[in-house]
Amino acid sequence: MVPHLVTALTGPISELEQRILESMPAVERWFRLEWMEHTPPFYSSVDVRNAGFKVAPVDTNLFPGGWNNLTPEMVPLAVQAAMAAIEKICPEARNLLLIPENHTRNPHYLANVAQLRRIFRAAGLNVRIGSISPEITENTTIKLANGEELLLEPVNRSKYRLEVDHFDPCTILLNNDLSAGAPGILEDIHEQFLLPPLHAGWSVRRKTNHFKAYEEVAKRFGKMLGIDPWLINPLFSGVRGINFAESQGLEALQDAVHALLGKVRRKYKEYGITDKPYVVVKADNGTYGMGVMMVQDAAELASVNRRTKNKMSVIKDGQQVSDLILQEGVPTIESIEGATAEPVVYMMDRYVVGGFYRTHASKGADENLNAPGATFLPLAFEPEHIVDAQGHPGEALPNRFYMYGVIGRLAMLAAAYELEQTNPEAEVY
Amino acid sequence: MVPHLVTALTGPISELEQRILESMPAVERWFRLEWMEHTPPFYSSVDVRNAGFKVAPVDTNLFPGGWNNLTPEMVPLAVQAAMAAIEKICPEARNLLLIPENHTRNPHYLANVAQLRRIFRAAGLNVRIGSISPEITENTTIKLANGEELLLEPVNRSKYRLEVDHFDPCTILLNNDLSAGAPGILEDIHEQFLLPPLHAGWSVRRKTNHFKAYEEVAKRFGKMLGIDPWLINPLFSGVRGINFAESQGLEALQDAVHALLGKVRRKYKEYGITDKPYVVVKADNGTYGMGVMMVQDAAELASVNRRTKNKMSVIKDGQQVSDLILQEGVPTIESIEGATAEPVVYMMDRYVVGGFYRTHASKGADENLNAPGATFLPLAFEPEHIVDAQGHPGEALPNRFYMYGVIGRLAMLAAAYELEQTNPEAEVY
Repeated sequence: MVPHLVTALTGPISELEQRILESMPAVERWFRLEWMEHTPPFYSSVDVRNAGFKVAPVDTNLFPGGWNNLTPEMVPLAVQAAMAAIEKICPEARNLLLIPENHTRNPHYLANVAQLRRIFRAAGLNVRIGSISPEITENTTIKLANGEELLLEPVNRSKYRLEVDHFDPCTILLNNDLSAGAPGILEDIHEQFLLPPLHAGWSVRRKTNHFKAYEEVAKRFGKMLGIDPWLINPLFSGVRGINFAESQGLEALQDAVHALLGKVRRKYKEYGITDKPYVVVKADNGTYGMGVMMVQDAAELASVNRRTKNKMSVIKDGQQVSDLILQEGVPTIESIEGATAEPVVYMMDRYVVGGFYRTHASKGADENLNAPGATFLPLAFEPEHIVDAQGHPGEALPNRFYMYGVIGRLAMLAAAYELEQTNPEAEVY
Repeated sequence: MVPHLVTALTGPISELEQRILESMPAVERWFRLEWMEHTPPFYSSVDVRNAGFKVAPVDTNLFPGGWNNLTPEMVPLAVQAAMAAIEKICPEARNLLLIPENHTRNPHYLANVAQLRRIFRAAGLNVRIGSISPEITENTTIKLANGEELLLEPVNRSKYRLEVDHFDPCTILLNNDLSAGAPGILEDIHEQFLLPPLHAGWSVRRKTNHFKAYEEVAKRFGKMLGIDPWLINPLFSGVRGINFAESQGLEALQDAVHALLGKVRRKYKEYGITDKPYVVVKADNGTYGMGVMMVQDAAELASVNRRTKNKMSVIKDGQQVSDLILQEGVPTIESIEGATAEPVVYMMDRYVVGGFYRTHASKGADENLNAPGATFLPLAFEPEHIVDAQGHPGEALPNRFYMYGVIGRLAMLAAAYELEQTNPEAEVY
């Protein structure tokens, strides 16, 4: 199920979109069966790029911020999904401790934390916010722009449990992607549910693992739908041991970019696509849109300037980059009032609960929009039918957000595969 | 979770409502634990009456029509809940056969059938509509006001299965309340899921069973919340063997009405309520608002006129009335543009997915609104905050639909108890 949201798409429905729309019952059943075998991540958001000729996820976030960008109509969907998630994990749950990112002064991020508190409170939990930031050593009240207050409390650790003053949670929800590594305070917690698990943090996750899992998902889904999986799958490869600052490994990187561009070019030729292929080079463990560059020709890498070297060397929380993912660039055909746009799909448990557009006025269709200057445009709910001049409902409108909800869930399913494969506590049979 | 809908309530929040609002996490957890032990009805709707001093369910429908009165924003909630319901019952489900009421020419009812088809299709099922009406002997296409078409197909029965041409459903959803008794074609189906079960039909259900179960639910909920259960529970009693047409048993009915009025009077006195108590007399197996009368004084029953006798004798599908439920009348304080109003809460599986007001311009606050001339007013979603003159969000608005969502779910839980207790296939330990 995908809510019927108003997209910016006005052009004709592509063959791919038509196939997905008309196969809705089969698609939903396919997901239903997958979720019998695999556990969805607790929550997730997926950046989707629609090139018209293909549509693909480009980033899957397992600690999504930005919940504040959902409209009030989407909140009940998130709450209902949160209830379903909690019921499965810990129906007796009474208290939830929410652990946010450590950079706690960003008002947009804090609005996201307040929204999460609202969602889980409405789902029937007492919610407190526990900070693991070294800067939060005592209770700190922050007033938000809308007048709401957030109380950040320092987290205390006993032998096997986390708590804040007079509040013993049975569930701990991380909204902190652990880029700098899982802090000791979160390790070896045995008596509480820690969601998502520590190995979903960016200190363990690798984009190459994710997109390998996605490739498998896309193949199976493509087979069910009878389509070439490339139409929903960005080609990729991985390169290790790069040091931009010291120009180490750049030759191997050039070779890999060259090879990937060749593969993309062959697919473009097969489909008669005249766009110029490009490759996105990203830190394999990167997030926040940091450590990303676009390459149209491997030769560009022979003369990388200092600024780019710096940009590619260090990402969030000062992490050094040495492993990269090279990903087929997927241009976006969506734009809103002249600004380039890409949809972001929000999911709680297995459900699509909403989404918005990330737009950027000064970036092109083949650039990374997750960059300073991006804005977020909530998606409105669309009525089911066009209303004619007399006010009578006419033809049913196709749900053009549906395809994005499918791609978002395919990426979420890939994350489920990925977390199974990287689970350090997995039992080996 | 209850969506934040705009109610007509503008007065101050009563002590009861305040208690329920501030106990939200505890209330939600309580429901969560109940649903671990009890299976919710597949879908339901509940008529709620809010007297200010008390709030109570007055009718619980296990074959709800009126889904067409939900707004487009509520549909995704219904779809998400439908997905959760299907996943539990039959995750492999591919085909759903929807069996509507037999009186298939009412355009509002047909719009309801189309809405249900839309919901279950979006939840990932192929939906066909199978009629068990003797009048539908061949495929019949009906065009709806909005241009949509419904194809009604006669249902075929094999030894253990129901089907329509070239369509073998694994799940059969009844939207037909079986007032006239379960037809043979629905009996002894062993290889398909029949939802709701046959004993949820009005040929088996009794309102007295339901409100006995509700009384138990209200006691347990009241204890958890620390309130007098009467504040959410309408007093009731049952009388059997009445024949209005032949004036049989009217004395016993008078005695029972007298006794119940006395009980209500004592509670009114306890709470200092100055309203005049009244009792609603209803057919114990009635539906569609048929077979209902209001009594303020048992003496009124000594001289019942022919018209009332006829009204009370025969209900939907020509069923004779002999057993009655007497129920404490709960006046409604809600009105919309001068019309008396009562909220109707819609639920799918354990989730509140929406609601609307039933309004009636020519009925008083102590009358049955489920009568010819009633209209339905969808409830809009309310923003989370009041926006001030400068467009800044201000104080968070209380969700005044929340209490109704709680009462609706308490009645649904009572229906779950009731269906367990009346299950003919229940194993006795």
